[in-house]
Amino acid sequence: MIRVLLVHDEYLVRSVLAEWLRQESDLTVHDTSWRGAPGMMRSVRPDVCAADLECADSYGIPPLGELCRPGPERVRPRLLVLATANRPGLLKRAAEAGALGYVDKEGSPQNLLRGIRRVAEGERFVNDSLGFGFLKAAEMPLTRRELSVLSLAAEGASIAEIAGSLHLSHGTVRNYMAAITRKTGARNRIDAIRISQGQGWL
Amino acid sequence: MIRVLLVHDEYLVRSVLAEWLRQESDLTVHDTSWRGAPGMMRSVRPDVCAADLECADSYGIPPLGELCRPGPERVRPRLLVLATANRPGLLKRAAEAGALGYVDKEGSPQNLLRGIRRVAEGERFVNDSLGFGFLKAAEMPLTRRELSVLSLAAEGASIAEIAGSLHLSHGTVRNYMAAITRKTGARNRIDAIRISQGQGWL
Repeated sequence: MIRVLLVHDEYLVRSVLAEWLRQESDLTVHDTSWRGAPGMMRSVRPDVCAADLECADSYGIPPLGELCRPGPERVRPRLLVLATANRPGLLKRAAEAGALGYVDKEGSPQNLLRGIRRVAEGERFVNDSLGFGFLKAAEMPLTRRELSVLSLAAEGASIAEIAGSLHLSHGTVRNYMAAITRKTGARNRIDAIRISQGQGWL
Repeated sequence: MIRVLLVHDEYLVRSVLAEWLRQESDLTVHDTSWRGAPGMMRSVRPDVCAADLECADSYGIPPLGELCRPGPERVRPRLLVLATANRPGLLKRAAEAGALGYVDKEGSPQNLLRGIRRVAEGERFVNDSLGFGFLKAAEMPLTRRELSVLSLAAEGASIAEIAGSLHLSHGTVRNYMAAITRKTGARNRIDAIRISQGQGWL
């Protein structure tokens, strides 16, 4: 039997998905939201955690790090993510968090079953249709530092506030913002935020 | 029999939801994306259109107007929306488009079945748990004009570009932006966009 923890923030959708998965005789399925996920990881200790990359909290950025923290035997949970090619920033985050499986939400539900079984065996699973998304993720032009600056700006922080929280001078923050605007091909700061959110980088 | 058109932008999710709905002996179910929805409305002519309010296009604002246009016999399609209380702007748009039913995605899938059957009879259906969202929608502080200005700003347009597309003077656009920032309780323009997108107003 494969123990699956399904993570999705919409109770209606995850109930129906979980019910659908339970029709398979080799799966035991628990389900939870992103908020409940770290606790359920500890109590259920699933063979595979299948998590939707959309998240209702923190501007849609799922707390993948918390989910992927190694357990007491230092074993990393096997993570399979439900993703779309047009959020390359989220794909990149999932890859950095060490996700083994990538199922395209634009594809057939059968991929989810195939993905769960492959990842349960410790093998990689990637839908070909996500390829373009990975390519775009690899081209992400911003550094970690630039992303921190832009994230604070996107939360409405002023130059002075950003400078204060990152221990930088005002001039340095302005230089970062200029570099970000140039590298994202944006017209201005708001456009840079819009482009970066659209790509799932923020 | 009730003819249902299910609209959801994620093929994986809508396939499983449609399959789940098809277990009910009184429902015939078709499914499509938001992009395909207007065409399917004309060909399927459903008794109920059950549409997820999340949309992959146009910054997440679903084209509800297109969906609710009256057909050849001037009958308005009966619309049931899948919504969450924390996107009051989208609830408001659905109400303005004349949606009859409102199912909370945070609630049980059984609500979807109840909602479809009620709306098919031409009756209103609203999950109580969406009440707070409707309250917040009623409190939406921005006028239509202010929303147009803010939408253009959110797309990265400059004051000059906004003035040009709305046929306003630069000073008027600046006044609108100041009013928007004040009314949304924001710290600055970027914060006003963030707050308004978070509320689903944009």
